[in-house]
Amino acid sequence: MKVTIERTALAKALGHVQSVVERRNTIPILSNVLLQADGGALILTATDLDIEISEEAPADVAGKGATTVSALTLFEIVKRLPDGAQVRLELSSEEGRLQVSSGRSQFALAVLPEDDFPSLSTDDLETRFSMPTSDLRRLLGKARFAMSQEETRYYLNGVYLHAHTDDDAPALRAAATDGHRLARIDAPLPDGASAMPGVIVPRKAIAELGRLLEDAEENVEIAVSSAKIRFGFGAGYLTSKLIDGSFPDYERVIPKGNANVLRVETKDFAQAVDRVSTVSADRTRSVKLALESDRLRLAVNNPEAGSALEELSVDYGGDPLEIGFNARYLLDVAQQIDGETGTFKLADPSSPTVILDEEDERALYVLMPLRV
Amino acid sequence: MKVTIERTALAKALGHVQSVVERRNTIPILSNVLLQADGGALILTATDLDIEISEEAPADVAGKGATTVSALTLFEIVKRLPDGAQVRLELSSEEGRLQVSSGRSQFALAVLPEDDFPSLSTDDLETRFSMPTSDLRRLLGKARFAMSQEETRYYLNGVYLHAHTDDDAPALRAAATDGHRLARIDAPLPDGASAMPGVIVPRKAIAELGRLLEDAEENVEIAVSSAKIRFGFGAGYLTSKLIDGSFPDYERVIPKGNANVLRVETKDFAQAVDRVSTVSADRTRSVKLALESDRLRLAVNNPEAGSALEELSVDYGGDPLEIGFNARYLLDVAQQIDGETGTFKLADPSSPTVILDEEDERALYVLMPLRV
Repeated sequence: MKVTIERTALAKALGHVQSVVERRNTIPILSNVLLQADGGALILTATDLDIEISEEAPADVAGKGATTVSALTLFEIVKRLPDGAQVRLELSSEEGRLQVSSGRSQFALAVLPEDDFPSLSTDDLETRFSMPTSDLRRLLGKARFAMSQEETRYYLNGVYLHAHTDDDAPALRAAATDGHRLARIDAPLPDGASAMPGVIVPRKAIAELGRLLEDAEENVEIAVSSAKIRFGFGAGYLTSKLIDGSFPDYERVIPKGNANVLRVETKDFAQAVDRVSTVSADRTRSVKLALESDRLRLAVNNPEAGSALEELSVDYGGDPLEIGFNARYLLDVAQQIDGETGTFKLADPSSPTVILDEEDERALYVLMPLRV
Repeated sequence: MKVTIERTALAKALGHVQSVVERRNTIPILSNVLLQADGGALILTATDLDIEISEEAPADVAGKGATTVSALTLFEIVKRLPDGAQVRLELSSEEGRLQVSSGRSQFALAVLPEDDFPSLSTDDLETRFSMPTSDLRRLLGKARFAMSQEETRYYLNGVYLHAHTDDDAPALRAAATDGHRLARIDAPLPDGASAMPGVIVPRKAIAELGRLLEDAEENVEIAVSSAKIRFGFGAGYLTSKLIDGSFPDYERVIPKGNANVLRVETKDFAQAVDRVSTVSADRTRSVKLALESDRLRLAVNNPEAGSALEELSVDYGGDPLEIGFNARYLLDVAQQIDGETGTFKLADPSSPTVILDEEDERALYVLMPLRV
């Protein structure tokens, strides 16, 4: 293997793939990145056995070949090379080291054989479709905050992605919930996606996708089975195993009839919640919303630290109502809302509240109240 | 107590004093900030029993008085109030709470009696002098990296500040060492400082001073005894207990006769050290410098990860020499150097090396070599 590649191109591809590598590995080769030189490109691949990320970078290949080296060490080196530098990678079979050279810097890195590098097979991804990158970014970006972190509820540790074809506007739907809050985001159903199985994409894949989608081209190619999903980005892809569990029937907890409608300026509301929550107790972070005609009072009472009260002018014509929420959860939802105005649909102090975004009609959030 | 104060002024003073407060306290009042309203100012004071920081902020005092409230809670509230807001602080004796109000936000914070707030007495600070803030910033800023973190060598956990009057250029001298590296920085000796005792200012006080000196006025007033030191900044002060120990006779370890002189471009050198150290083993981070006429080769050899080699053109006319250093320590020293060029004075592979700064003749660093 003998390759010359621009430092910037190598750093970008390596930056994309290396973050999936776990910092501590009992299997040494999982710390490594697979380098494959062929045609006019260097292909870089990293994996943690559940997720595989691969990306190709244009390179001048003087000799084909493949090997694996420490992903972190190579990334740390490449980051420190000057912008615009050319990097030469050369595997000399007798030495068993990858020579990395650039300018007056020379490195010889320990290698492990490419044949030992594990690969996630993707032969059986029967459903394939393409969708705008911006739609996928929106689906995952707005739903992910509601994923559960509880290991015992492993089937909630991801975003549930499925085709929703029951009503007039067929959708690719992303849902996430931790039992306390829920996000349900719709995007237009891509051609060919209606037959896809409902799949739970795990938390770590969602995080990696978040980074990859920032730099991605206009469209993402998705291929999915009931066990795996692959997101293709032109120069690279991410393949992830899916969570083997069934996502709960979350539609049941979305209330249909909440009649008390509150409209708030999202930014003012979030700032006020953030202020009053400074005195709340660490664990519950409970804030009380007291509503009467066109007036919202936010109150926190913490016997130890003190109390806080803030009043907001709002648009509210429903019944007088007092309801408690976790301040953190209110702020999380407020952050997803694009519009200047957010709409709360409330029933009573012990029933779930629906939150809607004026600027994004296909996003819906549900918050369970706290007892206050 | 009844005070109105600008949010920005309150946030600035509170920001300065609150950082000394330890996050976990067994003595509840140490979590609090002392607020004293008198004349045209609100005085804020916080302490951890070893360091006391106080600052006054201009305020409209409608009623004198004092109390203490949680420093962190008040700071979190004030940070979240809008720029330009007026904040009203009012202590109503019957309620036993401090009312904090601004716009439509109202808080009632738990208080503890001001009489219980501990204070560091400073009656006995017999040596007093004034010096330019920029000099003090330079002394502490350039010496602090060399402080020890080992608790058993408590007398090295700070910066040793003392008057040096033995030679032609009397100096206020700051020294710090952890046994592996040493920094010795001189500033012109201020009038009245020649009689000061040599004192060890502890690590935490150095860190707090670092922040306070950023915003300080032109001159700092220093008052010092063998037990305490106070730095006065016009609107505020920091008082610290000193480390009760004797700083070692560090001049002994500064070599006088190192004849092999190496001159390097500081930035290129630091970048090269940073690059080759990527393959070094975590614990030692050892890098080898091989010198011959006008050429420096930096080499790292780590049997597990691999090896690195980089060559630099330098100014060197001494004997051929190979010497090892901790890469982290080399980078720390390089960061202190203002000049484009740094000068290394070397003796042999097992003797300390002196490093000088072309732009700052009154700064001197010593590094102990590693065996390579």
